[in-house]
Amino acid sequence: MEINLPDVVAEVRAVFERYEQALQANDIPVMEEIFWNSGHTTRYGVGENLRGWQAISEFRRSGKLGRFSRTLLNTVITTYGRDFATANTEYERDGETLSGRETKTLVRTPDGWRIVSAHASLLGVTV
Amino acid sequence: MEINLPDVVAEVRAVFERYEQALQANDIPVMEEIFWNSGHTTRYGVGENLRGWQAISEFRRSGKLGRFSRTLLNTVITTYGRDFATANTEYERDGETLSGRETKTLVRTPDGWRIVSAHASLLGVTV
Repeated sequence: MEINLPDVVAEVRAVFERYEQALQANDIPVMEEIFWNSGHTTRYGVGENLRGWQAISEFRRSGKLGRFSRTLLNTVITTYGRDFATANTEYERDGETLSGRETKTLVRTPDGWRIVSAHASLLGVTV
Repeated sequence: MEINLPDVVAEVRAVFERYEQALQANDIPVMEEIFWNSGHTTRYGVGENLRGWQAISEFRRSGKLGRFSRTLLNTVITTYGRDFATANTEYERDGETLSGRETKTLVRTPDGWRIVSAHASLLGVTV
């Protein structure tokens, strides 16, 4: 299995950046498109655990979310062969003191690259 | 791409359970074995962001960690074809009030299944 084939990395980076723009703009249709439309898809947000595309979509459409700005740091995109990828990044959200981290796993489907698993959290909270 | 081929799911579940036992026992050699030995591997823990197998190993060997018990809830293991998988789970750690969530991405390598990305965090902390 070939790691980080340049053309595959470029494809995944383009999807990653398109999603990031949609997230900050709260562009729900684009976020819904890029998440795998499956009951298997999971998204752990900072304050919620969501299982299934439908639950993720309902959360996005709940009205709790909005536009915001954040800066990404130390982004690591890795591809495995031509059809699988992980994207890990740290982030600093404007107006927040705690920094965050976000992990996405992406799979190439017949419809294009899709996020099949996502996990966002804040760093540094220990009990 | 076939999702959740039963024999592949069984393989991944065995690795997932072996890792979980090693984690709770603080069996560092087994954890080191199961994490992909690559500079691309990432692990976001509750209180740290680690990039590269070496940094992950040094953290494990720092003496800050020990044995503990936790219970897993709502574990979702999904396989994509024969060589790629995600494992998402919620957890409750004995003696802690906040519940956690953990995401792993696994890839089949010539040496067996390896965790290429991991992210653990606590739920419910919002700023």
